[in-house]
Amino acid sequence: MATNPAAPLENLRYLDDLQVGERFISATHTLDAAQIKAFASQFDPQPFHLDELAAQDTLFGALAASGWHTAALTMKLLVNGPLRLVNGVIGAGVEVSWPKPTRPGDVLHVESEIVEIVPSRSRPTQGIATLRSETLNQRGEVLQKMVA
Amino acid sequence: MATNPAAPLENLRYLDDLQVGERFISATHTLDAAQIKAFASQFDPQPFHLDELAAQDTLFGALAASGWHTAALTMKLLVNGPLRLVNGVIGAGVEVSWPKPTRPGDVLHVESEIVEIVPSRSRPTQGIATLRSETLNQRGEVLQKMVA
Repeated sequence: MATNPAAPLENLRYLDDLQVGERFISATHTLDAAQIKAFASQFDPQPFHLDELAAQDTLFGALAASGWHTAALTMKLLVNGPLRLVNGVIGAGVEVSWPKPTRPGDVLHVESEIVEIVPSRSRPTQGIATLRSETLNQRGEVLQKMVA
Repeated sequence: MATNPAAPLENLRYLDDLQVGERFISATHTLDAAQIKAFASQFDPQPFHLDELAAQDTLFGALAASGWHTAALTMKLLVNGPLRLVNGVIGAGVEVSWPKPTRPGDVLHVESEIVEIVPSRSRPTQGIATLRSETLNQRGEVLQKMVA
């Protein structure tokens, strides 16, 4: 099977190594206005994600990242993070909410916990793990909650 | 208030113009392998999103887009689509699932329907609309389901 290219082999985990209650803390990603605008021009071209001035007159009050940008960065931090699975991380479905906007200058990290594991009966290295993740900034504010 | 820069003014909608049951069909986006790999290198660097050969030995069997890429493209198609709101589209939370992988060459479009509207009592141009969206390819296969 293919392996996660970023993962040192000795850190690779099989699903049946994992335990409910295990917690993982990711590295950080520092977000700036240029990244916010670049993502938004490609995927979410609304004024509050594109332009500081235009954002002032919107519900956000100032430039804010697209929620999909926060979600994509969360995935990056998870994939490059301490939970390295041999067969990779493939999500069948997720619930995501964004309690607060992500702002330029925010330093993001992800804290996650395994809340359930349902192994495949036929293939012990595969199965469905439910992971609850929170994406926080440097002030400990929760910007995104996800169950995947 | 700021307006959606891509929206001709005459097409802008206020929330209280919308009706439950209204349906919207987006334009299309054609996805190729280069876009899939570019998104994945930035946000979801796993072998099945990065490399055709490595993908063959994974659950996906061939190169597939990150689900977050499909989600971001869905947002682009929604924001540039026929539902143009004066105050923009801001999501508090979503449920997303990916019944089938998105592949190079897929031509995506989004079909969506307003399933609920809860207007704000104090501000008639604001409120919470629940939108159910499906992202389909040129063969009518549903690649993503979202309730937002």
